[in-house]
Amino acid sequence: MRKKISLIIIVIGLLTVLASYMQEPPSNSTNRMERIAKIKVDPKQLEAYHRALKEQMQAAMEKEPGVLSYYAVADKKDPSSITIFEIYANEAAYKVHIATPHFLAYKEAVKNMVQSLQLQDVTIIANAKKPGI
Amino acid sequence: MRKKISLIIIVIGLLTVLASYMQEPPSNSTNRMERIAKIKVDPKQLEAYHRALKEQMQAAMEKEPGVLSYYAVADKKDPSSITIFEIYANEAAYKVHIATPHFLAYKEAVKNMVQSLQLQDVTIIANAKKPGI
Repeated sequence: MRKKISLIIIVIGLLTVLASYMQEPPSNSTNRMERIAKIKVDPKQLEAYHRALKEQMQAAMEKEPGVLSYYAVADKKDPSSITIFEIYANEAAYKVHIATPHFLAYKEAVKNMVQSLQLQDVTIIANAKKPGI
Repeated sequence: MRKKISLIIIVIGLLTVLASYMQEPPSNSTNRMERIAKIKVDPKQLEAYHRALKEQMQAAMEKEPGVLSYYAVADKKDPSSITIFEIYANEAAYKVHIATPHFLAYKEAVKNMVQSLQLQDVTIIANAKKPGI
């Protein structure tokens, strides 16, 4: 009996290790919605904007299975020019996202900080990354 | 004795699960060089450009520890407008990269395909992603 339990635990452990290395299956990735948002922020309100943005990103990651990735960067020469690379599981997930309380709170908080916003829908050509990045 | 072994296996299993969600430590990431490349390609040579790009990305990933991530996307409205988000371990890794045979071969292969190239150095504000993305 104890031997059986030990064996089950070893198998579970091995499956867990295996699962941690596996990428999401390609069939899911063809439905994804990918977008680049280019945002110009009032330079005097940059700190407040960063706070609101990070709060939104964290809430979306925690609460929405359909929000897959956010990467927000600032231009080195002009930190008030911000680019956000966004990945959603599909269009439906995006539509759910823009109706969430945390997203609406973000839009309200930054409405007088954002000077311009450009949204560019994109499709992936290729991606490659080292583990842990 | 068997109980102890089972307990150790469970603990190892749990630590593995935990490790699969953890991001790279921040101290490494502050040295990183991050860049957005905006490329306009001759629409008639798009397929050939994609091939050359993917070949370069794959070689860089395999051979260069300092190349951390490439994400290449095309504008949905204009597939010849390509954006690549690049992450290198540090500036030194980038300088090594642009002298590699595979990168120089890429530049040679696409020299008559690329109509324009803009390079934008960026710094990260925040990133968040689901495991496996």
